[in-house]
Amino acid sequence: MPAATSALAPASRPPAASRRQSRYAAVREQTAALCRPLLPEDTVVQPIIDVSPPKWHLAHTTWFFETFLLQEHLPGYRVFHEQYAYLFNSYYNSLGSRVNRADRGTLSRPPLADVYRYRAYVDEHMQRLLATVGDDEAAPFAAVFELGLQHEQQHQELLVTDIKYILSTNPLAPAYWTDQPAPVASATAAPAATWLSVPGGVGTIGYQPAAGDAPGFCFDNELAAHPVYVADFRLQNRLVTNGEYLEFVRAGGYRDFRPWLGEGWELVQSQGWQAPLYWVERAGEWLRFTHHGLQPLDLAAPVTHVSFYEADAYAHWTGARLPTEAEWELAARRFAPTLDPAHFLESNRFDPAPLPADAAPGRCHQLLGSCWEWTYSAYHPYPGFDKAPGALGEYNGKFMINQLVLRGGSCATPASHIRLSYRNFFHADKRWQFTGIRLAQ
Amino acid sequence: MPAATSALAPASRPPAASRRQSRYAAVREQTAALCRPLLPEDTVVQPIIDVSPPKWHLAHTTWFFETFLLQEHLPGYRVFHEQYAYLFNSYYNSLGSRVNRADRGTLSRPPLADVYRYRAYVDEHMQRLLATVGDDEAAPFAAVFELGLQHEQQHQELLVTDIKYILSTNPLAPAYWTDQPAPVASATAAPAATWLSVPGGVGTIGYQPAAGDAPGFCFDNELAAHPVYVADFRLQNRLVTNGEYLEFVRAGGYRDFRPWLGEGWELVQSQGWQAPLYWVERAGEWLRFTHHGLQPLDLAAPVTHVSFYEADAYAHWTGARLPTEAEWELAARRFAPTLDPAHFLESNRFDPAPLPADAAPGRCHQLLGSCWEWTYSAYHPYPGFDKAPGALGEYNGKFMINQLVLRGGSCATPASHIRLSYRNFFHADKRWQFTGIRLAQ
Amino acid sequence: MPAATSALAPASRPPAASRRQSRYAAVREQTAALCRPLLPEDTVVQPIIDVSPPKWHLAHTTWFFETFLLQEHLPGYRVFHEQYAYLFNSYYNSLGSRVNRADRGTLSRPPLADVYRYRAYVDEHMQRLLATVGDDEAAPFAAVFELGLQHEQQHQELLVTDIKYILSTNPLAPAYWTDQPAPVASATAAPAATWLSVPGGVGTIGYQPAAGDAPGFCFDNELAAHPVYVADFRLQNRLVTNGEYLEFVRAGGYRDFRPWLGEGWELVQSQGWQAPLYWVERAGEWLRFTHHGLQPLDLAAPVTHVSFYEADAYAHWTGARLPTEAEWELAARRFAPTLDPAHFLESNRFDPAPLPADAAPGRCHQLLGSCWEWTYSAYHPYPGFDKAPGALGEYNGKFMINQLVLRGGSCATPASHIRLSYRNFFHADKRWQFTGIRLAQ
Amino acid sequence: MPAATSALAPASRPPAASRRQSRYAAVREQTAALCRPLLPEDTVVQPIIDVSPPKWHLAHTTWFFETFLLQEHLPGYRVFHEQYAYLFNSYYNSLGSRVNRADRGTLSRPPLADVYRYRAYVDEHMQRLLATVGDDEAAPFAAVFELGLQHEQQHQELLVTDIKYILSTNPLAPAYWTDQPAPVASATAAPAATWLSVPGGVGTIGYQPAAGDAPGFCFDNELAAHPVYVADFRLQNRLVTNGEYLEFVRAGGYRDFRPWLGEGWELVQSQGWQAPLYWVERAGEWLRFTHHGLQPLDLAAPVTHVSFYEADAYAHWTGARLPTEAEWELAARRFAPTLDPAHFLESNRFDPAPLPADAAPGRCHQLLGSCWEWTYSAYHPYPGFDKAPGALGEYNGKFMINQLVLRGGSCATPASHIRLSYRNFFHADKRWQFTGIRLAQ
Repeated sequence: MPAATSALAPASRPPAASRRQSRYAAVREQTAALCRPLLPEDTVVQPIIDVSPPKWHLAHTTWFFETFLLQEHLPGYRVFHEQYAYLFNSYYNSLGSRVNRADRGTLSRPPLADVYRYRAYVDEHMQRLLATVGDDEAAPFAAVFELGLQHEQQHQELLVTDIKYILSTNPLAPAYWTDQPAPVASATAAPAATWLSVPGGVGTIGYQPAAGDAPGFCFDNELAAHPVYVADFRLQNRLVTNGEYLEFVRAGGYRDFRPWLGEGWELVQSQGWQAPLYWVERAGEWLRFTHHGLQPLDLAAPVTHVSFYEADAYAHWTGARLPTEAEWELAARRFAPTLDPAHFLESNRFDPAPLPADAAPGRCHQLLGSCWEWTYSAYHPYPGFDKAPGALGEYNGKFMINQLVLRGGSCATPASHIRLSYRNFFHADKRWQFTGIRLAQ
Repeated sequence: MPAATSALAPASRPPAASRRQSRYAAVREQTAALCRPLLPEDTVVQPIIDVSPPKWHLAHTTWFFETFLLQEHLPGYRVFHEQYAYLFNSYYNSLGSRVNRADRGTLSRPPLADVYRYRAYVDEHMQRLLATVGDDEAAPFAAVFELGLQHEQQHQELLVTDIKYILSTNPLAPAYWTDQPAPVASATAAPAATWLSVPGGVGTIGYQPAAGDAPGFCFDNELAAHPVYVADFRLQNRLVTNGEYLEFVRAGGYRDFRPWLGEGWELVQSQGWQAPLYWVERAGEWLRFTHHGLQPLDLAAPVTHVSFYEADAYAHWTGARLPTEAEWELAARRFAPTLDPAHFLESNRFDPAPLPADAAPGRCHQLLGSCWEWTYSAYHPYPGFDKAPGALGEYNGKFMINQLVLRGGSCATPASHIRLSYRNFFHADKRWQFTGIRLAQ
Repeated sequence: MPAATSALAPASRPPAASRRQSRYAAVREQTAALCRPLLPEDTVVQPIIDVSPPKWHLAHTTWFFETFLLQEHLPGYRVFHEQYAYLFNSYYNSLGSRVNRADRGTLSRPPLADVYRYRAYVDEHMQRLLATVGDDEAAPFAAVFELGLQHEQQHQELLVTDIKYILSTNPLAPAYWTDQPAPVASATAAPAATWLSVPGGVGTIGYQPAAGDAPGFCFDNELAAHPVYVADFRLQNRLVTNGEYLEFVRAGGYRDFRPWLGEGWELVQSQGWQAPLYWVERAGEWLRFTHHGLQPLDLAAPVTHVSFYEADAYAHWTGARLPTEAEWELAARRFAPTLDPAHFLESNRFDPAPLPADAAPGRCHQLLGSCWEWTYSAYHPYPGFDKAPGALGEYNGKFMINQLVLRGGSCATPASHIRLSYRNFFHADKRWQFTGIRLAQ
Repeated sequence: MPAATSALAPASRPPAASRRQSRYAAVREQTAALCRPLLPEDTVVQPIIDVSPPKWHLAHTTWFFETFLLQEHLPGYRVFHEQYAYLFNSYYNSLGSRVNRADRGTLSRPPLADVYRYRAYVDEHMQRLLATVGDDEAAPFAAVFELGLQHEQQHQELLVTDIKYILSTNPLAPAYWTDQPAPVASATAAPAATWLSVPGGVGTIGYQPAAGDAPGFCFDNELAAHPVYVADFRLQNRLVTNGEYLEFVRAGGYRDFRPWLGEGWELVQSQGWQAPLYWVERAGEWLRFTHHGLQPLDLAAPVTHVSFYEADAYAHWTGARLPTEAEWELAARRFAPTLDPAHFLESNRFDPAPLPADAAPGRCHQLLGSCWEWTYSAYHPYPGFDKAPGALGEYNGKFMINQLVLRGGSCATPASHIRLSYRNFFHADKRWQFTGIRLAQ
């Protein structure tokens, strides 16, 4: 970067650079803010392979900017540490060997302080880079920059869920929030669910800026938008609640194989599942672990931390079923939910909120935020899907097998990260995300 | 069963009874015929959990008739042996506990001779029962009887593939066929594949007797027939050949992660896959294990014994993809393949035959028989799918997760068992079935 | 071998050859006799890695003679089958690669009939060879010949115990003996155990033909005879009975960690042990599986099929301990037990017999035969132990770690196979051998 | 404790109390000193089950004093935290349930700072308690107090080895010592080993204060002292060096099954062992990981971090063998080594030092400190061994199976912790301790 240009940069800096700089800073700060209540010790451990140490998240998101932007676009950039690429590459075969995923929790070094130094170093260079690149949103730089931010937001959600898991396995049941009171459980039940009818036919799903989707960014797995045929169907106007799910538990839902898929029933038996993850029965009362430690179960709040198997078994037990991905998106487009920050990461609630007793029965609630909603659709490529060349082609495509699509975002998703066309995906047995249930018929 | 009726039965036997009796006898004899070349020792072993001992297949299919027909419909029927229900129940939780699937190969008793006695006992009672039931095809009896026959045909296919696996793991590489020569490998390559175009739109898939499907029987998983939307697509007019797949092997297909799904690449590495199952390289020449023992690779024959991961990786490597289940069925209905017994179990070939050099380029070949064709569609319920009540409800529904649909039948499928709407399903890593590849675009 | 020599052989055959020929024939016949009650199917399975298929035992013992005698000493000998060395080598690294031990139960071929043909072929050639070799007992041939016979006798014991295990895992609980009645359980308790005192000091253990041990053969692990020092000790005059052990079971012995070694207690919990192997409680009555199927527990008979952990825990629970190997042998030499065939394999009882109610209290009973007696001594080399060169050096030496010594032989040991210096060895968790308990103080 | 007494205590405090107080303080400080170079993150991880997090060691040793002394002997004592007994009990079944050993590395809380607060709290109360108890060395208190100190010293050694392992698995290969230079590798080879002859006969092993052992303390497993008989034998006058072992490596020692015990050879193959733990070959040069990071191999220093299998295979390869426990102790008593602090923990070297080139050839070197010496003796009870009643009875006795005795202490052992009768014990496959080889014949 010639010095002359650099000296002139502030004056001539286009608005895009400024917007990018502040957006970058805000996203990065959000990540740091999530880790601030943690002790260094909390940032190291990995109780199960799905859960990464917070220290790793902090570094890996930084490595992403360093690898795909600074090394590509900032002339003369020198990496912060030669071995961090080995330590903090997640799964990119294109970028060489790396620490086994299962061994992330064995690494005490670099210490947290060094990881923060790494972040500061990369942030400083990113700000320099952002000051110099042009305004062209269609340039390759712009796409990868946006991807880096979205990627960091995905890891923010993982930080919330991984921290919860880490603290939950500790016999001390420590709270993440130590300076604010836990929400009080609802005094009244949730309003009864109603069924909303959706007429069938050919509709279009996938990312469609022309049809109202916010322009600017989507993941490759949301493309191409394409027609699908669905029959008439009905969807419940809210998520299934803890109270409703507790009836299933009490009715022996975890002791009767009939509503379960075969592989789900095997898990129930081999893992000893008796309730959703984090539920604990103490002296006849049900508690559950939250970011405030163990708290009473709020019967009016959406049930969460259920696997697909549990969601499907519950739906069968009620005589209903889970929606398909296409049904969910077509219904969501029809009911046009508003995006309420109270249901997202920014609320710092980290728990799906109960529906108010006076919620309008004719509207479709909790479609965005609250809980990821399991669909009975495999995470497979859309027609015409094509993965990017190079390492970023490994971002989504290679996972398109043996996972199910979840829709709508959760209380741990940044509000600016969600879209109606957004496709999240997990294996059917996973429970540590904020996953919930919406019934269809 | 009143004696009077019994005495009169032969004279007054309606045609349906007679048809059923001979059909029953023919299906049962086919199973026994498949096991005739085996020694008692061959019928006991279970080298991997997927492969059941032939003795078990012989008994389990018999148990099915005993449990669901004789015990339900033949008054005064006494089971052959009290413990056979425990030994030979496959996976029906509704019917109580059973031998662990992984332990089937530890059971030396009952010996093969007793299993044949069991078959004879049940066959004799089945013939008695068939002589007495009426002509009503819509009666519950008729449906379960038909299911029993279809079930036995499914196990005939498994016998062919399981026997192959059992013999293949033996260092002596014994042949199943000892009294007939092995087919000679093709002298010429297969005719070049051509692309057939299929126009998109809304079409109907699933079992449709009104639209030409043979009336009488389908599995519950083929229902309900329902509209689907597909875009225009192209399908190859034949299966991928050994010769074509060998190019992929030789080009390093098993050493480059790029065309592979993530879980597939992990298997390639952990299992050391270097070629399809049963392929062996000896002194630079490729052989493969068949029911005739080790034989040279026929380059013109369809490649088989590939997992979904290999099928998908191969398709990516060529720049194409696998078809979806809907595409396959809509194309199959359009191209209306004839059912050639030479490609099915009855041919006793047990190997997919090469396409003749003069096969018509404009037709779609090998759609039925030869190899099960992997689709990139999850084995999920069709809209409106409803499983049967009771134990038979466990037949299909509980497997609808983490498996992929395969279409068209194979060289080990009885010809009378296949339909255009038939949905077979296996996990993506399975290779011991006669699975093949048809490319789409 | 020239025909002329062969024709003359009977006349000029030296006594040693004749003795060897008949001894060889007798030992080989004993093996075949043990397998005669089995069906071909019984000879194939391997329910756990410790248990080998009877077909494998029949072939492996034959391979031993073929490899170490016929190939070495019979000019022009041609092996029966080129691949049998790969199939039937047990653990000799010196002799090349082999079937994994855990995979022995996956091999249906060669069938049992071929294995018997193999035995006949080798037997015929062995008889020819034996007719020609000289009388020199010190020659290398003589030592290996003797080793081959002793080796076959070891496998006779394994056949008895492996067959028992194979039949026991079958839900049909089939009996091995179908043509003879099971022994009736004792009407009276065993005579009370008494303590026999043995004065301490320096004594000699190990094989000592000069001191009364039958000359001719011992395993290398019994050498060199060497002095040991033991303190005064006491030994019980009989084995612990089922009745005594049942008190331990009923007193909660399997639910209290205190008498157990740490690794033993982990096994009790992880394996769910509640009693010795083969014990089954049905409606409040204790049965156990035998070669006659399920039979009532004989309270006067020695307890058997206990692991070292159970033997040690029982001993602690009574306030006693297990003897060391040196104590056992010094006591045995002092009490000079007679060798009663009723307690060995030849009795076809395959179960340790109860001590008669009038057994002399001052004598030491059941030292030979009945049950292998666990000692609290590691199976380590004796001072001066040196393994043989070549493949036979792998016979014993490489197992001298993590195993415990057992002494005295069992009801499945051929009577001619045992000695006071005989060292058997198993891992502390093994229970499928006829292992029992003698207390020391 | 009444205030009056407390005020008077210093004046009337008996010398024993004062001695105990300062000894307690010194031992406890040593533990803290070992952890001082660590970051909080280093104290959390558990890369393999054998290695405990340093934080856990700090807390567990404290829990020992709290549980066995403060709760028993200090009236009115209140535990620091109710759940610490669950978190920091190691293996005492008598004291209730506890965190699974394999899960110690998943616990981020309590943080390191809280663990130090726990130590300070217990230390303060221990000092109070020590001020009040009497002078009677034979009282139960005195024995348990001494055991607590010895126990803490054992964990000091584990801290040194566990920290080494933790840092070694980190791709950054961080050094524990950052403020002191690494020792320079020896310029000359070690003096050639000589054989020292020891005459056989009956000798006594075990703890014998009457025969010169320091009075005051031994573990129960060193009792009772008892006569043993050994034959004449020879022992090398120093430990095997890296240079000598490197010859074994270069000669293909890890590729030839012949010198290995069977279970050892399986480990070599399944674990891919090619050299001792921590050895790394880089561009033809051998390095090894130390507390100073990766350092060149010192050919004159004793080889360390070898399993029993490697020690035994090396000995066989040279035509020698390992000594038995009795041989080692009788020889050690004969050669009466002096205790040189340079070979122990206190040197802060944490690495066995090379023997000086001018070491006297006729003396027996490195018997104490340097490396634990593998013996070919099982860790079994001595005659007359009796474990203590209650929880402390679990200290040693329950481990007396499947482990081997090691003798002499290592460079990580506190000098005041070792005795000639000291019996250390590990499983034959363990390599993370400072284990070495001394040859016998």
